[in-house]
Amino acid sequence: MLGKDYDRQECAIARTLETLGERWTFLIVRDAFYGVRRFSDFQAHLDIPKAVLSDRLAGLVEDGVFTRLADPDRPSRHVYELTAAGRELWPVLHALLVWGDHHRGPNSRFFVHARCGTRLDDRADCPACGITPAPDDIVSKRRRGRGNLREDPVAIALRKPHRLLEPLEITV
Amino acid sequence: MLGKDYDRQECAIARTLETLGERWTFLIVRDAFYGVRRFSDFQAHLDIPKAVLSDRLAGLVEDGVFTRLADPDRPSRHVYELTAAGRELWPVLHALLVWGDHHRGPNSRFFVHARCGTRLDDRADCPACGITPAPDDIVSKRRRGRGNLREDPVAIALRKPHRLLEPLEITV
Repeated sequence: MLGKDYDRQECAIARTLETLGERWTFLIVRDAFYGVRRFSDFQAHLDIPKAVLSDRLAGLVEDGVFTRLADPDRPSRHVYELTAAGRELWPVLHALLVWGDHHRGPNSRFFVHARCGTRLDDRADCPACGITPAPDDIVSKRRRGRGNLREDPVAIALRKPHRLLEPLEITV
Repeated sequence: MLGKDYDRQECAIARTLETLGERWTFLIVRDAFYGVRRFSDFQAHLDIPKAVLSDRLAGLVEDGVFTRLADPDRPSRHVYELTAAGRELWPVLHALLVWGDHHRGPNSRFFVHARCGTRLDDRADCPACGITPAPDDIVSKRRRGRGNLREDPVAIALRKPHRLLEPLEITV
């Protein structure tokens, strides 16, 4: 069951982790970069068992990668945000993604420098500006010609270009 | 038991993986960059149960990260070498290591550009030459002032500077 659900993550990171071992933590962090913040949204997008997700989120909070805040829109609920240390995982995620893209089949998304619109290279640099943009200066876009493998609210919201770390607007 | 053995890996990657989840695969790949090639040496250096190591190595061969060759020195034994795809995991490993070094305590090793001796920066670039050296042009050195946490043959061999990917001379 788990293996099959995991196969449905249309992302080079997921495919890379098929090789490199860890199933969920990197994907939760990846989704946080994509603007996912609520338990229910991580769950819907990752098909991850609730108990596992709950355990991983608690671990990520404990390890200082995520911070847990009161949800401004839903009393008594919480949102999870990447800490400064968590945001510094961007080079790791990007390197995983590039490797997966080269060796496990093309990724479904690509990244452009928000300020100038230029596509980032394999080192996550903007070749036009000659800088390495911070995640909040990067826009993630969907590659053309990809079918809609997933129909969950997060996958639907991510069909539009989306700036990293900006909370994703989920229509429930 | 496993948790405790794993704690003894004196490497920022190991500490990073305490957070990020995967216990062994990244460490096996890391050791391959350090020149480890034999089953018994991986086992001695990683304190990994034989069955787990055997499973992970078979998986890495199947996934095209390692290639398995006849051991030139020991008939009927094998050595494991990183493939071209495996060697392209260097940016992932380096990024994990940098994150761990910043957020999980200093790493026990650092890396210099073999050609000029300059220490690589956090992006794995040589600031003196303005290039990104390939792994076989990088020398790994031990940081001063680190105690000898491990006394296995691989740990002892790695006390001297060692060029990445060059087979490690193990005195048994």
